[in-house]
Amino acid sequence: MKGISILGSTGSIGCNTLEVIEHLNEFRVVALAAGRNMRRFAGQIVKFRPEMVSCESEEGAAELLRELYALGETPPRIETGAAGLVTAATHGDAETVVSGTVGAVGFVPTLRAIEAGKRVALANKETLVMAGELMTAAAAKSGAEILPVDSEHNAIHQCLRGETRDEVKRLILTASGGPFRTKSKAEIENATREEALNHPNWKMGDKITIDSATLMNKGLEVIEAKWLFGFDADQIAVIVHPQSVVHSMIEMVDGSIIAQLGVTDMKHAIQYALTYPARKSNCQEPLDFKRLSELNFEEPDVDRFPCLGLAYEALKSGGTMPAVLNAANEVAVQAFLEGKIRLSEIPKIIEAVMAEHESQTVTSLETVLESDNWARSRAIMKLGKTASAN
Amino acid sequence: MKGISILGSTGSIGCNTLEVIEHLNEFRVVALAAGRNMRRFAGQIVKFRPEMVSCESEEGAAELLRELYALGETPPRIETGAAGLVTAATHGDAETVVSGTVGAVGFVPTLRAIEAGKRVALANKETLVMAGELMTAAAAKSGAEILPVDSEHNAIHQCLRGETRDEVKRLILTASGGPFRTKSKAEIENATREEALNHPNWKMGDKITIDSATLMNKGLEVIEAKWLFGFDADQIAVIVHPQSVVHSMIEMVDGSIIAQLGVTDMKHAIQYALTYPARKSNCQEPLDFKRLSELNFEEPDVDRFPCLGLAYEALKSGGTMPAVLNAANEVAVQAFLEGKIRLSEIPKIIEAVMAEHESQTVTSLETVLESDNWARSRAIMKLGKTASAN
Repeated sequence: MKGISILGSTGSIGCNTLEVIEHLNEFRVVALAAGRNMRRFAGQIVKFRPEMVSCESEEGAAELLRELYALGETPPRIETGAAGLVTAATHGDAETVVSGTVGAVGFVPTLRAIEAGKRVALANKETLVMAGELMTAAAAKSGAEILPVDSEHNAIHQCLRGETRDEVKRLILTASGGPFRTKSKAEIENATREEALNHPNWKMGDKITIDSATLMNKGLEVIEAKWLFGFDADQIAVIVHPQSVVHSMIEMVDGSIIAQLGVTDMKHAIQYALTYPARKSNCQEPLDFKRLSELNFEEPDVDRFPCLGLAYEALKSGGTMPAVLNAANEVAVQAFLEGKIRLSEIPKIIEAVMAEHESQTVTSLETVLESDNWARSRAIMKLGKTASAN
Repeated sequence: MKGISILGSTGSIGCNTLEVIEHLNEFRVVALAAGRNMRRFAGQIVKFRPEMVSCESEEGAAELLRELYALGETPPRIETGAAGLVTAATHGDAETVVSGTVGAVGFVPTLRAIEAGKRVALANKETLVMAGELMTAAAAKSGAEILPVDSEHNAIHQCLRGETRDEVKRLILTASGGPFRTKSKAEIENATREEALNHPNWKMGDKITIDSATLMNKGLEVIEAKWLFGFDADQIAVIVHPQSVVHSMIEMVDGSIIAQLGVTDMKHAIQYALTYPARKSNCQEPLDFKRLSELNFEEPDVDRFPCLGLAYEALKSGGTMPAVLNAANEVAVQAFLEGKIRLSEIPKIIEAVMAEHESQTVTSLETVLESDNWARSRAIMKLGKTASAN
């Protein structure tokens, strides 16, 4: 049984990972880390019996203890906060670490897991967006494998299996287009929180669902793809494909397109990342071509979805600019989810923060975290202005 | 410069191969064989200067000489008939042999090329349909590589590049559905020669175009796929995809579908077969997703297209049955092209011949050729009956 550690075990990636682990029956859970939902976390602990767990806060840890005692269970070793996440990420018995936390909180523990030479099943896209250079350099040094869990990058990883890097012309990430694909600029402007959270194909967390509605999610994926696969911005294309059946594609120098298709269930990509290079039978319904009938493709519209264009700009600027884009986006999305700003203000805030930033070369974790902090405060200030302007 | 020999050089595969060779500039044509169109053949000889050529008949050779003298050219070494084809197929300077003849005539020379350990770029599907066992056994013995030029098998070859045989669940061949995809049984019954030759996506020779209209082409491809890739009938599926953009797919045990997409130009598959494992830039327009817009999939209808069901039956019977299916089909299609029978009589003739055949194990070339001959005479007899019944 291979040891596995899961960061963000009560979130959507974490829960799906545990389902996959249960199905595969070849992994032993050695560490779990979670932020909210201590009742669910207690249930996972009882079922998978990790050697240690980490809670986001002291309050969470106390709540978890109450839940476990109520179940008559002896608690495992419990740590908390950023340090606890790093302990889980670098657990000596974990060969594989699933990085499934949302946002910048996963950044440091993922880097530590990479430095420790673990296989990292990466769902936390901020990690590569913020500091792709650091992460890939660390992986090259430690021999860590980074296996993408995002369905698009996972698809590209599959497409690249038999191919030679130099013979790949470009990567083509598919985008569902989100809930506003067919909506006018004005309709997007006035979209409610509920409309934005109503993703047509994928059931995911709130933050990533809003990013899907603005196409920022695709923009972050473009940046992520650069670091995962080593292609430049002009070799990474995005195409809107509303059915999300083609998860992504690569185009070869001979004009051949290799595509990976599948059901819209993230368990597939998670399992692939855990068992690679082997493929194992899984616990999902296969893709049913009889029910497929039609697949559509269209160019993305950067006018209605300016976040995608901003992400390309940040990638071309390089250095700390992608971290700034990401931080400003996190602040703006949170504000939108809290009802403080309108959807259309998200790109405006990001653009304004980027315009004020002078991109620096990423030489260390500190450079990145400084830029991240700076961008957050600038975004919060703009938020205030935007909110008061409403 | 790698030596190459082309069987069927004035046909559609041959002409496309010569275009690819001109573009690639890394092959030297050492032998060409052709059946008809001696004017075109003379032009190819002048341009590519093969060391030897073969004509189907003595009359053809005489005509070729006249054409070459008219151009003021010294002719290369000329051979004729079946022996000439074999000389071209086994030419000592040819590392690669393109088997592009139509029908059973390519059978023996292709086997000889395989026995001689050549890389065989195989467009002649009858070869594997008639005697897949012999061909694959000969390839295993000589170390010959068989690279499929059919777009479907070529696609599957591409999809399989990075995959492990045991992890492949099934192959999924796409079929355009041909010109009668949306037609009723009665309309297909009364289809004219011109309607049947009007293929929606691919420009190919007459025989294969009729096979596409009856879906026998797909049936033959199912049999071919068995031998090329080593999968059983129940692991080879067919799906109708009218746009012919997805050239074929594989489904893995983990539910993942890997697909190859491209333009409908056979030069792509030809080039792939010549340069494999390398991929080179090519002389075609790339696939344009902006112009793609919609891809459709539907189940094939074996009621309107009984030839597909007959091919599966022949594959399941095994032994000499596929050779019988193929021979009866060749006779029936020829009769249809000559206006002697209706389109709907093709499957009836094949079915009647198959019903009379007791399948034998394929132990030698002779077994296959005997069954082929037997089936041809039986089909011709049935043809007479059918024709007189009209």
